Amino acid sequence: MVKLIALYRKAEDAEALAEFEKHYYEVHMPLVLKTPGLIKSEVAKITGLPGMENKYHLMAEMYYADMDAFNAAMATPEGRAAGKDLMGFAKQYVEMIIGEVKE
Amino acid sequence: MVKLIALYRKAEDAEALAEFEKHYYEVHMPLVLKTPGLIKSEVAKITGLPGMENKYHLMAEMYYADMDAFNAAMATPEGRAAGKDLMGFAKQYVEMIIGEVKE
Repeated sequence: MVKLIALYRKAEDAEALAEFEKHYYEVHMPLVLKTPGLIKSEVAKITGLPGMENKYHLMAEMYYADMDAFNAAMATPEGRAAGKDLMGFAKQYVEMIIGEVKE
Repeated sequence: MVKLIALYRKAEDAEALAEFEKHYYEVHMPLVLKTPGLIKSEVAKITGLPGMENKYHLMAEMYYADMDAFNAAMATPEGRAAGKDLMGFAKQYVEMIIGEVKE
């Protein structure tokens, strides 16, 4: 299994954060959940540990069977809509990486 | 549920990477898996996406019932042994954050 990991850095102030949260949960996640081939997803609110720096606010993981399934999903109209939405509201916050899940 | 997320940056060369991998799987993970209160864990090898920067090599997630269970686990001899081992072989690579998993 592979997962797309999206790490969102904190927005710059409370207003930007509220706007981010609203768009994330009301618009973006519903688009992500429509992506064909998505097996499961997990979203976590990020906090720091005492004495450790933390620049993140949210982490989302989207699981697919393998890289072929992931690439196919990204190429569908639903995958492209989710990607376009992401770039519209969170381009300045998001880092995306791929995780190959160890069994 | 909460999870401790450990993000490991890539080691500087192939030799350091091989040493990291060996210690991680043969010594560190067995220590982590002994930690009381650990519900489940997931390790993923990280790769980048085309056109996107990626500085990470590995991501590990350790799940606990809540922050009290996590803090209690870290205070046990097993938790302290895992923490001490981590600082010994991966202090220069690791970033640790906490995720509150959304249900």
